[in-house]
Amino acid sequence: MSARPPSREQQIRSFLDEHDLQAWIAWRPDELLMLSAYFPFWGASLLIYFADAEPVLFVPQIEPRDHIPAGLRVQEYPWGDLKCSDPYSALVAAIGHELVKAKVEGEHVGMNPSASRISLPIQAAEQIPIPEGFARQLSALAAKPNAHRQAAFADLYLKKTSEEVEAIRLANRVANVGLQVFFENLQPGRTEAEVAAAVESAIYRQIGRDAIFHSRGWAMVQSGPNSADAGRFNRSTGRRLENGDLVLIELATCVNGYWSDLTRTAALGSPKAEVDQILALVRDAQQAAVDGVRPGVSAADIDALARDKIAAHGLSSLFTHHTGHHVGFRYHDPGFLILPGESAQLEPGMVITIEPGVYVPERGAGARIEDNVLVTESGHETLSRIEGSRHL
Amino acid sequence: MSARPPSREQQIRSFLDEHDLQAWIAWRPDELLMLSAYFPFWGASLLIYFADAEPVLFVPQIEPRDHIPAGLRVQEYPWGDLKCSDPYSALVAAIGHELVKAKVEGEHVGMNPSASRISLPIQAAEQIPIPEGFARQLSALAAKPNAHRQAAFADLYLKKTSEEVEAIRLANRVANVGLQVFFENLQPGRTEAEVAAAVESAIYRQIGRDAIFHSRGWAMVQSGPNSADAGRFNRSTGRRLENGDLVLIELATCVNGYWSDLTRTAALGSPKAEVDQILALVRDAQQAAVDGVRPGVSAADIDALARDKIAAHGLSSLFTHHTGHHVGFRYHDPGFLILPGESAQLEPGMVITIEPGVYVPERGAGARIEDNVLVTESGHETLSRIEGSRHL
Repeated sequence: MSARPPSREQQIRSFLDEHDLQAWIAWRPDELLMLSAYFPFWGASLLIYFADAEPVLFVPQIEPRDHIPAGLRVQEYPWGDLKCSDPYSALVAAIGHELVKAKVEGEHVGMNPSASRISLPIQAAEQIPIPEGFARQLSALAAKPNAHRQAAFADLYLKKTSEEVEAIRLANRVANVGLQVFFENLQPGRTEAEVAAAVESAIYRQIGRDAIFHSRGWAMVQSGPNSADAGRFNRSTGRRLENGDLVLIELATCVNGYWSDLTRTAALGSPKAEVDQILALVRDAQQAAVDGVRPGVSAADIDALARDKIAAHGLSSLFTHHTGHHVGFRYHDPGFLILPGESAQLEPGMVITIEPGVYVPERGAGARIEDNVLVTESGHETLSRIEGSRHL
Repeated sequence: MSARPPSREQQIRSFLDEHDLQAWIAWRPDELLMLSAYFPFWGASLLIYFADAEPVLFVPQIEPRDHIPAGLRVQEYPWGDLKCSDPYSALVAAIGHELVKAKVEGEHVGMNPSASRISLPIQAAEQIPIPEGFARQLSALAAKPNAHRQAAFADLYLKKTSEEVEAIRLANRVANVGLQVFFENLQPGRTEAEVAAAVESAIYRQIGRDAIFHSRGWAMVQSGPNSADAGRFNRSTGRRLENGDLVLIELATCVNGYWSDLTRTAALGSPKAEVDQILALVRDAQQAAVDGVRPGVSAADIDALARDKIAAHGLSSLFTHHTGHHVGFRYHDPGFLILPGESAQLEPGMVITIEPGVYVPERGAGARIEDNVLVTESGHETLSRIEGSRHL
């Protein structure tokens, strides 16, 4: 019997230990989720993770409290135009106070000041309200970032614990509800936007079931000639579906903070043979790469399983992107990509996408199929293929 | 007849002139929209606005091109894992080259490095992919920001041109389609999330009509006791609507980059008199503030029109937020708030929200009503009250 994978707490403590850190300050929604299983509503919450004491979570007064996990010590900070004109100064002072109380000095405090590719919080209509200068103010409480330590921190995203896998599985189950609606709505005459809207609606409606307090999908549907653009961008237009189209859906789904990233391509009616061939090839390439997922295989080797199939048909220049990426804490987790030349190896607990695509403007058609695949001790499990749901 | 308000170009040139700037570099989606009427898909586009030459727009190779306004000089920069590992260095070099070519020196170049409260681009499922360090690299090409200049730049958001007002009017028209669906879905037994999902779906489906290439709503529905939370946060839960509830919807809508921000509160069935009174009071307070909107009135005076009505019922402590904010280029535009003590005056072309609310946990009820109001030469026009649509 193989060893149980390290718990989240063990992974974090061993990271802190190795880098001589006594605390980590996190404010990005995806970091909060990874460090504490708490997903912020406003995106203005902040966590100090201590190596030798329980974590402290700072939330604005206006944060809902019912989805904060038990066992987190919570401190409120003031918020509101009528009450406090500068909540962040109060927050920075409170953080400094906690660090002093814990006798932790700045040189032993780490943080990630980058605002790049932050996961959207529950209130997703506006980017998080962290003001210019806040990260800089915070940085004054921490050691200067160094590339080695930041990279090691990003590595913490790579291996999901069994609890996290369950949460990503739930996101995939919800996403599959959306995909069912996609297949049911494939009717000539409907617009891409109408199909996508129905999918997102089905996902939002899941709130309240299965302990789901947050469920949001971003569905992008491209049909016929528009599907040939899907290697560069995904969006829905007012184009009406036609018989003979390939119809592609890119679907990002966030459930309670955890993400699924799926793509399906369906043939509507009877496409021309030259169009059908694209879909058959992509299906074949995707299945080959999924089948190859197991511990110890390199990212480049997985990529080659898909890319070689496409190259064998002389179409490699039309597969314009990577074969996959890590997923779960974000729509796109940090970590190595599944692409040529990448020697990093798969390990149990990793969750990656497998998503080859071929886009042929001359045939007015493009196809991509994307699943979320867990690397297990003995091979893999496809989290996004749900028993009883229909897959094309 | 009064003077025509200055065009967007006149406003920008006069700002550059006053601050001895020959160019402004913009990368935030809301800044690109305001400076050039272009709304980015990926959020990785960048514009140099020259005082004495036509603007240059840099877009990643993967950006769709069909919604870029005519007359913008467009330069592509490389993008894609298989093609370019560091697109931003190439971009920074290209920008430097354009500035040298135009003989503009860094001390005469302005920019806004802040990543705070950025409007979401069309690809809204992930925050914009600007990496840590990019803003810093860019800053090296520009003058050091000073607070006076940054504030003057933010003032450019305040007065909308007639073209921008039309775009915000369209966003409000689309939002009203969503509000109709809200009222139609107010049935006991439906969950808050189901009602909100139907509203968002109706908004997304508008893509393809009336030159709408991007239409997305964020609907948050709170019913019964949950409506009493709406002064602190807005979300939808699995709670089922009941007769006697107040049901509140907060609705952010983005159409082609321009925003509407609306709230409605409806009574379902026959609430208790003490609950009905809350809604009646908010309606009365909101109407009073809207009626007062005209050029030359101070923000504090508008706020008082609503706040005094609520105070007269002894409920001022339950109106916990501002009466309004600027809106249009973002869900919340920069600029002064409509709140006590704010002496800034309304001017023609401004678009503000008017949104008093009263939240009474003891009565299990809260209400807010929010409209988007244009200040005109002679008074105001409520952009969000659409002929023929139903309003409560």
